[in-house]
Amino acid sequence: MCAPVVMSSVRKDLSRRRFFGAVASCAVSAVPVDAQPPPVRLPKGFRSVVDLTHPYSPGLPVYPGYNPVRVRPRFSIAQNGFAANEVTFDEHTGTHVDAPSHFVAGAVPAGRIAVDTLIAPLVVISIAARAAKDVDALVSVEDLLQWEKRHGRIPSAALVAMYSGWEVRIGVADGFLNRDAKGTMHAPGFGEEAARFLVDQRDICAVGVDTLSLDAASARKFVAHVAILGAGKYGVELMANLGRVPPFGATIIVGAPTHDGATGGPARVLALV
Amino acid sequence: MCAPVVMSSVRKDLSRRRFFGAVASCAVSAVPVDAQPPPVRLPKGFRSVVDLTHPYSPGLPVYPGYNPVRVRPRFSIAQNGFAANEVTFDEHTGTHVDAPSHFVAGAVPAGRIAVDTLIAPLVVISIAARAAKDVDALVSVEDLLQWEKRHGRIPSAALVAMYSGWEVRIGVADGFLNRDAKGTMHAPGFGEEAARFLVDQRDICAVGVDTLSLDAASARKFVAHVAILGAGKYGVELMANLGRVPPFGATIIVGAPTHDGATGGPARVLALV
Repeated sequence: MCAPVVMSSVRKDLSRRRFFGAVASCAVSAVPVDAQPPPVRLPKGFRSVVDLTHPYSPGLPVYPGYNPVRVRPRFSIAQNGFAANEVTFDEHTGTHVDAPSHFVAGAVPAGRIAVDTLIAPLVVISIAARAAKDVDALVSVEDLLQWEKRHGRIPSAALVAMYSGWEVRIGVADGFLNRDAKGTMHAPGFGEEAARFLVDQRDICAVGVDTLSLDAASARKFVAHVAILGAGKYGVELMANLGRVPPFGATIIVGAPTHDGATGGPARVLALV
Repeated sequence: MCAPVVMSSVRKDLSRRRFFGAVASCAVSAVPVDAQPPPVRLPKGFRSVVDLTHPYSPGLPVYPGYNPVRVRPRFSIAQNGFAANEVTFDEHTGTHVDAPSHFVAGAVPAGRIAVDTLIAPLVVISIAARAAKDVDALVSVEDLLQWEKRHGRIPSAALVAMYSGWEVRIGVADGFLNRDAKGTMHAPGFGEEAARFLVDQRDICAVGVDTLSLDAASARKFVAHVAILGAGKYGVELMANLGRVPPFGATIIVGAPTHDGATGGPARVLALV
């Protein structure tokens, strides 16, 4: 996600050509796809379902500027015979989707992301070993090429996720945001070149991370966000359990929210392994 | 869903034996299932993805007592360089899940519904022709047996959905709630015997409807809710596009929400056909 203080510079990085390219690309992907047979990309069977969603609790870390989710009981079984709550959330909290419209005016909101791209081959790029030593570790083009050397070319319409192992820091005081003495956050993310490689050189549908931002937390510009969302792809942030799925072979299902004008929002994310 | 005024009688209908049976059954289904290989129940491939989710708009009908979803912009691209909203919703609005805890104290909340039951064979029982003539039409045991005569026994761990065709009434003034001169609502739902048949005689995981309530809107007691949620099964209400999927052969994916103590909530629901 995107700190208000830094975000003002983002649009400058999105050149006019890329901007209109992104809007055009988004318009295409907004066409209802039910009518077109998508490629069959489900595994023939699966042995287990892995929940890639963190339970959506007020205790989860949030990016600065956002509030944790609030749950307020409105009806109770004792009083009313049934129970029901009112829930208030900021869109970019919990395990959530970033829609292209989060960064690009007029681009696709979460509810209009093409439904067949919500079910995708899952590619997991683990940089956990490096991130354990370097809190500013970036997914590089070299990481992607190394993955391809082992598993073959990143498949068409894949969701490519970074696994940094950051989730062990949930609940550790400021471990997730990981601020230094000057208040600058440090957490891994996608480097600009890797993000551009994925959208320009490969045919992906989305990018995911187990941190709060597609970009490294200390990045001064939202280069990965701009590259990915600007190309009409979506993002998934604060993913859980990426260490429990294989680097290749799982299928991800992203339950993107559909509320009016959603720039993203909490999503149930599952993997079939 | 459940009008406060009528709900006070619900617990009386849930006998002590059934109540504790339900809680025990819920406790079992709350065990994380990732560890156990679920039966393979995905189709070998699929030709299309059908969105069974209504776009979550304030214009959707809501059950009396609940408020429509509210979306409030907090950040905008023009002002902040990125856009983000705050969203407030009542859990049982939009296309949504009813968790067992909606009716049964101590039962499973939405976030702890066993993940492998969120992916299920979809059985569609169409009563649309009858509902067009009878606004109080009920899914009966006879309807279920007729379906089985054509398609075989309802498969294990299925989600059984009523298609009443009610969605054409969305946007028609009070057409969906369909109140009579006395203010009583009229819309189709599951009859008590059919609901009990499904949970007692078949091995289902959930029940769905394209109306606002598992029960017929004019029902004086929430007999279908009590039978289904009381047995530890979940519900999905206000489903979209059930007329666009076959009576049998599709696989449904229910993106149940995970917020703390969720008695249910908006869910992205997709079908693979």
